[in-house]
Amino acid sequence: MTIRPWRRTGTRTVHQDRWVHLRADCWVTGEGKVLDPWYMLDWPEIVHVVALTPDDRMVLVRQFRPGAGAAILELPGGMVEAHETDPVAAGQREFTEETGHAAARYRLVSQLRHDPAHAGNRLHVVLAEGATPSGAQHLDPGEEIAVETLPVDAVLAGLADGLIGNAGHVGAILLALRAAGRIGF
Amino acid sequence: MTIRPWRRTGTRTVHQDRWVHLRADCWVTGEGKVLDPWYMLDWPEIVHVVALTPDDRMVLVRQFRPGAGAAILELPGGMVEAHETDPVAAGQREFTEETGHAAARYRLVSQLRHDPAHAGNRLHVVLAEGATPSGAQHLDPGEEIAVETLPVDAVLAGLADGLIGNAGHVGAILLALRAAGRIGF
Repeated sequence: MTIRPWRRTGTRTVHQDRWVHLRADCWVTGEGKVLDPWYMLDWPEIVHVVALTPDDRMVLVRQFRPGAGAAILELPGGMVEAHETDPVAAGQREFTEETGHAAARYRLVSQLRHDPAHAGNRLHVVLAEGATPSGAQHLDPGEEIAVETLPVDAVLAGLADGLIGNAGHVGAILLALRAAGRIGF
Repeated sequence: MTIRPWRRTGTRTVHQDRWVHLRADCWVTGEGKVLDPWYMLDWPEIVHVVALTPDDRMVLVRQFRPGAGAAILELPGGMVEAHETDPVAAGQREFTEETGHAAARYRLVSQLRHDPAHAGNRLHVVLAEGATPSGAQHLDPGEEIAVETLPVDAVLAGLADGLIGNAGHVGAILLALRAAGRIGF
């Protein structure tokens, strides 16, 4: 069975400012059904950094997240700025700003999406090896971020219990640890 | 460093219908900075099913996804309906509807989120073991879904190359395969 592509026959902006862009599209499916409205969110490209220290720890960040209603552990990272063409460089910048660390080596592990049904932006996974403290954090206004450096074994043990609550971060961590040769599966 | 919780001091609906609810909240951070608007999306609870056959294959679905611009491989699953209180039962229902398969055993592996910064809904990961064909698909209007049953080894080998493009699905697959004793990390 071959799935035929949909065709977009219209789009209109529902709400747009510097933080969010919600569109209502009209799509016609492969079998001719009209889906209107089909909502799309135009988020910027995102980069997540899986950073490992020389003594087998992972550099994580904790910040308050309204959807979780708590301060939770996440991967450092953030938006690829509009002028940035290299997601690895964007990851390096975000990692240093948020954690006050730098790494000896950065490389792209995978390019995924966080919501292919309703968003076209990609999620770039960067592996940073040889991470060590390099200076102070440089946070955006409103950001309050605690840096927590956990043994990789503790991260792996905690994944099933929700230590890292963002499902996409779980995938990024495991793909990057495999790329680093730290785990096999 | 302890991250202080934020307080929500206001909320207003930007756009709401049966498919999407975009809110603009006002939040005050732990250090007193006012973030207004902070956008939140009220999506329903989601369940993803990692289904394994007796001959070590995974039951996946392929459908067109506008954000990817292509028909992509994903986990079966979908929304937990408003009247459903058990995400495992919802996963069982979605799995059977989308794939025309049933499984001998279903259990909850993990409860994650897909976007804790901007959405409060959870993403329930269900492991289904002993999956076999059971009948016809029962699809919603507009759904066109191909069922593809791949060797687990092929899924694992393809993850880094984007075989499964949704980052949250990658995390769900790996947590479920570990829960099933199929991989260790």
